[in-house]
Order: sequence, then C-alpha cells, then structure tokens
Amino acid sequence: MDMFEISVTGEFERWYGEAHARPDLLGKFAYGLPEFFRDEIKSAKLVAAPGCYPTSVILALAPLLRADMIDRSRGIVSDSKSGVSGAGKEPSSRTHFVSVADNLSAYSVFGHRHTGEILEQLHLAASELIFTPHLLPIPRGILSTIYVHLAQPTCPSDVQSCFREFYAGSRWVRIFPSPQLPQIQFSLNTNYCDIGFCLADDGQRLVLVSCIDNLLKGAAGQAVQNMNLMYGWSEEAGLN
Amino acid sequence: MDMFEISVTGEFERWYGEAHARPDLLGKFAYGLPEFFRDEIKSAKLVAAPGCYPTSVILALAPLLRADMIDRSRGIVSDSKSGVSGAGKEPSSRTHFVSVADNLSAYSVFGHRHTGEILEQLHLAASELIFTPHLLPIPRGILSTIYVHLAQPTCPSDVQSCFREFYAGSRWVRIFPSPQLPQIQFSLNTNYCDIGFCLADDGQRLVLVSCIDNLLKGAAGQAVQNMNLMYGWSEEAGLN
Amino acid sequence: MDMFEISVTGEFERWYGEAHARPDLLGKFAYGLPEFFRDEIKSAKLVAAPGCYPTSVILALAPLLRADMIDRSRGIVSDSKSGVSGAGKEPSSRTHFVSVADNLSAYSVFGHRHTGEILEQLHLAASELIFTPHLLPIPRGILSTIYVHLAQPTCPSDVQSCFREFYAGSRWVRIFPSPQLPQIQFSLNTNYCDIGFCLADDGQRLVLVSCIDNLLKGAAGQAVQNMNLMYGWSEEAGLN
Amino acid sequence: MDMFEISVTGEFERWYGEAHARPDLLGKFAYGLPEFFRDEIKSAKLVAAPGCYPTSVILALAPLLRADMIDRSRGIVSDSKSGVSGAGKEPSSRTHFVSVADNLSAYSVFGHRHTGEILEQLHLAASELIFTPHLLPIPRGILSTIYVHLAQPTCPSDVQSCFREFYAGSRWVRIFPSPQLPQIQFSLNTNYCDIGFCLADDGQRLVLVSCIDNLLKGAAGQAVQNMNLMYGWSEEAGLN
Repeated sequence: MDMFEISVTGEFERWYGEAHARPDLLGKFAYGLPEFFRDEIKSAKLVAAPGCYPTSVILALAPLLRADMIDRSRGIVSDSKSGVSGAGKEPSSRTHFVSVADNLSAYSVFGHRHTGEILEQLHLAASELIFTPHLLPIPRGILSTIYVHLAQPTCPSDVQSCFREFYAGSRWVRIFPSPQLPQIQFSLNTNYCDIGFCLADDGQRLVLVSCIDNLLKGAAGQAVQNMNLMYGWSEEAGLN
Repeated sequence: MDMFEISVTGEFERWYGEAHARPDLLGKFAYGLPEFFRDEIKSAKLVAAPGCYPTSVILALAPLLRADMIDRSRGIVSDSKSGVSGAGKEPSSRTHFVSVADNLSAYSVFGHRHTGEILEQLHLAASELIFTPHLLPIPRGILSTIYVHLAQPTCPSDVQSCFREFYAGSRWVRIFPSPQLPQIQFSLNTNYCDIGFCLADDGQRLVLVSCIDNLLKGAAGQAVQNMNLMYGWSEEAGLN
Repeated sequence: MDMFEISVTGEFERWYGEAHARPDLLGKFAYGLPEFFRDEIKSAKLVAAPGCYPTSVILALAPLLRADMIDRSRGIVSDSKSGVSGAGKEPSSRTHFVSVADNLSAYSVFGHRHTGEILEQLHLAASELIFTPHLLPIPRGILSTIYVHLAQPTCPSDVQSCFREFYAGSRWVRIFPSPQLPQIQFSLNTNYCDIGFCLADDGQRLVLVSCIDNLLKGAAGQAVQNMNLMYGWSEEAGLN
Repeated sequence: MDMFEISVTGEFERWYGEAHARPDLLGKFAYGLPEFFRDEIKSAKLVAAPGCYPTSVILALAPLLRADMIDRSRGIVSDSKSGVSGAGKEPSSRTHFVSVADNLSAYSVFGHRHTGEILEQLHLAASELIFTPHLLPIPRGILSTIYVHLAQPTCPSDVQSCFREFYAGSRWVRIFPSPQLPQIQFSLNTNYCDIGFCLADDGQRLVLVSCIDNLLKGAAGQAVQNMNLMYGWSEEAGLN
C-alpha cells in the first residue's frame, strides 16, 4: 500500500467541497495508520491523522483486500455507527441530548467526507463501496459492520489466519476468534482496534465487525502511537 | 391560597435579574395550577403557566402546608432532578449529549429562578426552603425528593388521608399508597403528577417523592388542562 | 404475495431448533401484516403476529421486490438495530443496564430466527439476504438500514412512486421524500412504519432506511391493527 | 474517630436482617477509609472495605462534624444517587435496561443497609440523618447532595479551609472552590472523591456535593489504596 497522496485537483475538493489550503504539503505526509505505514511514519516529518471511521473500516478490510480474497465486483458495504463525540464538541441541535437520546439516525449517505479517505487508502473505486454512518446515543465508540463477498469459498480458519498474520506485529489490533464478535464496550478507553467476523455456510458471504474508541485509536491514542514511532519510542508508550 | 400576585418591585427582579416587561398585567393573571386555582382559572382571561419544577414541588407540599402539618422552622429541602428538555431546546455545551450522558450535576444552588415561584405559591420565607435542581441524563421527566419535619408525630394513614382528601376532585394527581413510591417512568407521556411518601418511625421525618413529565404536567399538558377549564370543557379533554 | 404457510417439515425447525407445537394449525393462519394481507386478515380466524424485525424489513423491501426492481443476484443486506425491549423482559446479563449502556453489539449473525420469516414472506432464497441484528442502548425502536442493487438504473422519483403507490391505502406507512431519512425518534410511540431512501448517482445502488416502534407497529400496535380488520373496524381505531 | 467496631448484638442485625457470620472477627478490622484511618490500616491485618455510598457521604461530612461546625439537632439529609453497577451484576427486573433507562427512582428510604455504616462512622444517632438512595440511568458514579445546618454563621472560606486542612495529606480527595461543584463525570475512571459546597447568605444553610466512581474510590480503587498502605507502598501505586 502506498503512502497517502490525495490528488490535489480532484478528490479532496469532491469530498470536502473546498480547495485544500496547502496543496504543496500533500505529498509530504505519511498516512498515520501505523499498522500499514510503520516505516513511512518512522521517517516522516509530517503525519496525517486518519479519520475515526476510516480507522475502523480500513483496518478491517485491508488484510483481505491485500490478499485478494474479496470479490470487489460484488460491492462492499460498511454500515458504521459512531458515538456523539465523533461529531465534535460544537453544540448544535443535532448533538443536543434530546436529539440523540433514545434515537438512531443514518446521515450523509453516499456523501460522508471519510468515504474519500477510505477509498483512497484501500484503492477502491467509488462504485465498490457504500459507507453509511449512523449517530449512536452513546458518548464514544465506533462499531462498523462490514459486508463483503469472498472471491472463493473459504473456511473461517483461513480468514482468521489472514488477519492474524497481517497484524502479527501490531500491538493495538486484536483479532477475535470466530464467531465471537467485538462490542463497543470492549475497546472503550483503550487504543485497540478489535476485529471479528462471521462467515456464511457458503464460505463466501462474510460479515466483519470492527470496533474502536473514536477518541483513542480513532484520534488522540493513534496520534500518540504515531508520535512514538516518529521519536523511536515503544509503540505502547503512554497508551497502557 | 391566594391568586398569584408576584410583587412588582421586588421578587421578580430578585430571581430573574431584570425588570418585568409588563408589570401592569401581573395582577390580572391566575396561576395555572388547576388543583389549587380551579375557580380562578375558570373565570380568568390570563393564566400564568407554572414552571415545571414548581409544579412538582408545590403539588407535593401544599396539602401538608395547608393542613399546618409541617414544622417550617425545621426547614424544607427539595432535591429535584430534571431531564434535559427542561433546559430548553437551545443548543449549548451544557445540553450537548456528551456533557449530559453518564453524568449528573447540581446547578443554580440557592439561586434557581423557580425558587421564587415556589416560595410565593407556598407562602414560605426564603429561609424555610432549600431547592436544589439537578440535570439528569434523560430526555424528560422530573423527580423531586422532598424532606420535611412534621409538627406532630403522625401515622402514615393520616398523611395519606391528607393527600387523598386534598386531591379528591383532581383527575391528574395520583397518590401512591406508602411505602410505594412513584418513579419518573410511571408519569412519562402522561399529564399526571404522582406523589408518594415514606414516614420515619418517629412519625415526624417525612420523605416525599413527586414525579411529573416536565413536557406535559410541567408544561403543555397543564396548559391544555387550563385551557379546558377556561373554555368550560372537561379537564381531561385532549389529555388521555 | 401468498398467505403465510411455513413448511411444517423444514423451515420452522431450521430457525427455531425444535418441532412446531401445532403443525396442524399452520395453514390456517393469515400473516398479520395488513399492508399485504388485508383481505386475508379480514376473513381469517387466526392471524400470526409478525416479528418486529421482519415488519421493518419486509415493509421496506416488498414494494421493490414485487415490482421486480431489485437485482437479487447481487444480494440484499439488512443491517438492523433494535432497542432492548425487543429482547424481552426476562432479566439476563445481556439485558442488564451495565451491559447495554454505552455499547452496541451485533448478534445472531446468519442465524437469527427472524431471518426465516423474512425470507419466506419475501420469497427470497437464504443466499439472497444477509440479516444482521444489533442491540442498541435504547429502550425501544428499530432502525433497519437495507442495501440493495436495482436491476436497472432508476431515478429517485421512480423509487418514490413505487413506494407511494404500493402504500397508497395504508394508513400506517409513511414514505419520506428522498433524501430525507426517518429516525427512530420519529416513529416512537406511534404505529407508523417510516421508510426513506438514498439512491447513488449510478441509479442502482440503493440504501433504504426503515423505522418502527417495536412495541407498537412491531408488536401490540400491529395486533390492534389486525384486530380492527378482523372485526370490521377502522384500521386506525385505538391507534391514534 | 475510632476504629470501626460494629456492635455484635445490635446494629449489624438491624440493618442486614441476619446475624453476622463471624462476630469474633468484628473487633479486628480497620475501617478501610484511608483518609481517616491511615495509621490503623497500616498496622491492620484485616481491613473492612467501606460501602460506596458511605464513602461519598462520610468523606463530605466528617471534616465539618469533627470540627463541631454542624448543628446536628437540625438534622442532616443525604440525597444520594448511584449508577446501576452499584446494584451488583446480578440480572434482575430492577437492573434490566428497560427499567433503568429514561428513569429515576428512590429506594430503601429510611432502610438502606449503608445507613448503619454511615451513622456508626460519623457517630450520629439514627434520628440525626436521613439517607435516601436513588438509582440513576448511568452505569457508574455516585453523587450525594447533602444538606446540613451550621451551628454558627460561617463564611465560605472557613468552610473551605476546614476541608482543605482536613484533607491536606490526602491524595485522593479534591476540594472544589465554592461555588464550583463536582459532577459525576469529573471523577469517573479515577480514584478521587470530589467535594464541593454552596453556602446560603445566612451562612448556616449548607449544601455539599460529593462525587465518586463507585467502582474505584467506592470499591476496587479504595481497596488498592488500602493494600498500598498495608504493604507500605505509595498510596498512589496502581491508581494513576
């Protein structure tokens, strides 16, 4: 997977609706997902912090995509749900307690900004992914339920091996033994990304579940993880 | 109990921090608590809607105060808790979901505006009541836990009789048989004010619990109840 | 669409793990979804109450399936989320407040009992649908986010027309004008099933969102609606 | 303040409704509230872990009681609110999500077991304290709002000094500058007991607010704090 190089003239404006403020710097950033760009981050002067949703989606999909196990022509669906802190601390009618409590809503269907980031990092075409965010009545935490079709009938242990090998050296990713699935509570207040899956009897229809704490692995925790790499410190420092 | 006549020069400014916009109208309002001012409301042109907290506190205390059963010199405490809709729909950092969820906070201790309204309606001196509001992590509902000292040792059935008789003709007040206590859920989405109590073995220390839905009996529901009276309709109309 | 006739020897046992207690009665039930079986219900002696999840999924998918607008070979995904009352009132560690609050979890992936009911009513093969239920930290309400691929490029107004015509005589289904989407709060404490959708630029990838109150349209409300039909009363009686 | 010595023949049975299993051991326990019994705990072989409610109430009241600043004859009220984990992990209809969410309830009025523990540690007579617990719709955290009448008119700075001096060497108690008040969120996931207060203009009516995380300072955190003392380690070890 290459370093993050969002195209100046095209993708950024499409998803953010405005020109990038510093296009001259774009090529100089490493994409700060240490599980994929550890070496680039270690030698980078500038690191771009991944979005919270992309962290949960990319970490779940990349191992299978890299191994060419997914039939992209069937389409990928990421049905993602986030706690309210993901919407920022700015007060609005949307983040008012009474709007959120006892509720669930989908938003920005086909148009959320993080879609571009996910597509780019996973080398997917826009037609290959539907990403639907939802606002959960909880303060923090993201759970993405991801639907893919495997190219060949596969057994669960091969899916598991793919993940385990990919993340063998990654302290902050936990792979759950199928059919156990992560829940948001398990990763709250930690820097973990938890990944689990269920495979249909046909060995092809696969449901992935990925959980993070959006304020840690999805934001500040991952920033510390990147800083640790940039300064040559242990990737765990300050995160236990 | 007299009709609501807040003194123009004094009490309003003390609690609201500004001059009243229409002091000329003050004497022309009936206080819209039908359980006490049914006759006044029926003949009134203008009715002042009670605050949500005062509705829960006044309905619980008035029967005992009227019957002179409370030793005011011992002081009365109303520890009141409200859902977030009581704070209005204006977005603010205080009503942001992340500020409210998983939290509880006391606010405006000794200074909440509704204190003046409670004191006036109950003919209490400021030194005789402590009213402490709290913000609950729920959308709606108020529960007031009220602590009083009875003037004479009393048995629970006499307390109960006092309430039952006082509210005999009041459709929208429910008295719970001690030691059963109302909960916020019981009155949600209804126009009821639910009142229960527990009396200590000494027959004097009394804990009252009063619950309303702040958007109904504490606001719109009570307004409909008043309108029904003003138009000569059934007090239940539109509220079942 | 035919009346509900679950095969005695096969499907029931597959999803419920035990023999049906009264196979002799199976053929005598109407499936109690009035929007599809109004005539059958009117003349039925026995009506089977639909599950809560199936109500939300079937009402969103049936119009498009009937009109042959969906490419079934691409697969259908229903990512459904339910409040806790859907799990019943039996206390368990799973429904304990501390397990549910600040959490979200997927469960029964590929194996939830309601899958069989959805497949049967929609005449789908098991391979054509993935249904994934999730437990939301709210007391009640269901939101299903449903992903389908249309057989032909279509414009949003044609999708909307399909729904509007199908539900023209149905008092308890509300179709939202795209891109407005229903939220759980909108249907709470009502008997409505709210349906909205977003269509991708390609005119084929379609996201449907369907919301109900699982205790009303998903249970007791729908039962009343059925009773109204059986007795020849207005379909609205007791539900406003 | 003396070491914890619950009377074998009386108080325990009164509050727990059964005989103590090991009355022979009662006199050998130190009461594990390090802020009061640091020396006793250091030399103790057995330490009794305080209840969660008593921790929040005793820490707020003891400094003022020791300094004889409270008029006990006026009575003390502790209106305490706890998250659901305080009720234990046993599933029950009372801890079912649907019973707790969107709700608030008072319980065990005049009869909660922790009352005996509070009375004993504070050397109060039963007639001098009303302790009312409430069940909050949150997973964890306790807030106690405590009402006392000071023996003499006092200024806020003297109240503050009383607390600051009393807890000068206590790492895990934070005194808020009046009129700032602690909230449950501030102490969550910490071992702190946060204490704040508001004093009426008369200098006598005092409202105290005390917050802890019932699973840390109210349980496991305090146990670690005690263990640290018993082993001669830093009182902070493992708690930062």
